[in-house]
Amino acid sequence: MSKIIRFGISLSSDLSKRFDVRLRKKGYSNRSEAIRDLIRQDLVIEEWLEGSDVAGAITLIYDHHKRELLNKITDIQHDFQKIIVSAQHIHLDHRNCLEIIAVKGDSAKVNKLANMLKAINGVKHSTLSMSTTGRSLV
Amino acid sequence: MSKIIRFGISLSSDLSKRFDVRLRKKGYSNRSEAIRDLIRQDLVIEEWLEGSDVAGAITLIYDHHKRELLNKITDIQHDFQKIIVSAQHIHLDHRNCLEIIAVKGDSAKVNKLANMLKAINGVKHSTLSMSTTGRSLV
Amino acid sequence: MSKIIRFGISLSSDLSKRFDVRLRKKGYSNRSEAIRDLIRQDLVIEEWLEGSDVAGAITLIYDHHKRELLNKITDIQHDFQKIIVSAQHIHLDHRNCLEIIAVKGDSAKVNKLANMLKAINGVKHSTLSMSTTGRSLV
Amino acid sequence: MSKIIRFGISLSSDLSKRFDVRLRKKGYSNRSEAIRDLIRQDLVIEEWLEGSDVAGAITLIYDHHKRELLNKITDIQHDFQKIIVSAQHIHLDHRNCLEIIAVKGDSAKVNKLANMLKAINGVKHSTLSMSTTGRSLV
Repeated sequence: MSKIIRFGISLSSDLSKRFDVRLRKKGYSNRSEAIRDLIRQDLVIEEWLEGSDVAGAITLIYDHHKRELLNKITDIQHDFQKIIVSAQHIHLDHRNCLEIIAVKGDSAKVNKLANMLKAINGVKHSTLSMSTTGRSLV
Repeated sequence: MSKIIRFGISLSSDLSKRFDVRLRKKGYSNRSEAIRDLIRQDLVIEEWLEGSDVAGAITLIYDHHKRELLNKITDIQHDFQKIIVSAQHIHLDHRNCLEIIAVKGDSAKVNKLANMLKAINGVKHSTLSMSTTGRSLV
Repeated sequence: MSKIIRFGISLSSDLSKRFDVRLRKKGYSNRSEAIRDLIRQDLVIEEWLEGSDVAGAITLIYDHHKRELLNKITDIQHDFQKIIVSAQHIHLDHRNCLEIIAVKGDSAKVNKLANMLKAINGVKHSTLSMSTTGRSLV
Repeated sequence: MSKIIRFGISLSSDLSKRFDVRLRKKGYSNRSEAIRDLIRQDLVIEEWLEGSDVAGAITLIYDHHKRELLNKITDIQHDFQKIIVSAQHIHLDHRNCLEIIAVKGDSAKVNKLANMLKAINGVKHSTLSMSTTGRSLV
């Protein structure tokens, strides 16, 4: 467990006031946590740009009536089983599914998997959530 | 089921060549699907900006050893049960969890939930994947 | 002139160490300025989302050989003269121009101008830099 | 001058209708130009990620009363004179300036310059517009 340190930062009272208003809107109860979140977001961007080990989620929207599509999505997932942790499947309506695939591993491989799934004919939309394994982000 | 239509687009051969190279890199097998994906991405951005019904995923990274944290995360999810479809929980390592919450509903409410979860002290990182319910995005 | 205040923030030594490494890479000499920049960036996003008075820059890339194009770009700029401050024109090569238009005013109007210029047939690329008038961002 | 080619794309009538509505909102008069813009935007992202020759604009917001600041901003610009084409200076109000620097060259160097300017104490906000030299983007 990493020990807690404390340091001071200086800013103008104008900037501080506007920041406090923004914090309340976003639901923060104190400045420290809001600033830690800004710092962590900045570090997570770096992890993805520099090819570290990352975690995240890939979302897919598709019509499950197309059988061929399901097979392709499943086949590709098997080729990437080392970085896929689990998957969640939601029935949005009669036709549309939301599949959320939890991923963990090398950022380049995660990107490749996301691109391959997105390119499948019949996948209507796809996103890649770039998160983190959380190490050193306490 | 919506019928398929076909229309022509014109572009310079230089632009077309560069686009073809880009497609192959991204794993597409034909131009139509690649262009449909660009169009759909543009429409999904609009859905989120204009406050329509959307679908998506919220990711959270946190240390499950903090009991208070788990309670807060669960309490907030209960307050938003109408837009939460299901949740997936992944053990990244001894301390860190990745929780992925599937959401569906009004984009303003989804945004509010994402903000509230992110602001919790102890949540190390959070993302919001802006996807779509898929209607009219065939 | 707003007076300077100082407050303490607490974070784990692990997070602090990673942040310090990141700061040096990005060229910062101290934590206060880096944190102020993260705060200001967060506030500028809010200004644009909430329709305040903003400042920014629109870039256009186009082929100046097309006379019709130049007329259209100029006509539209005249219709928005109240929010256009000045323009800068750079000859990238024999054919391609980079035009940078400095804008200041209501964010919705700036967005509309950016969209109209981007939609002109012959404009190859366009960006909108979302900056700020700087008030309360000292 | 590159010759014009034409090819057909197929999509559902539902998707096509929504796209047409979106086009009109964004100010396009025909589908070809809207699709070319989506394609070009995708290619410009690639240029920046892969380290090609690019063009763009850096914006800076700062208080010109701080003399030291002006010297630093000028010094750094001189160190990067090979990639700086010109600069535009706008007086936003009594205190705040918007400076827009037109840049052209290697994307890594442009990024480095943008980072260095942003990190200067007293620069309130900074953006980097990632555009293109326009070659092969007709």
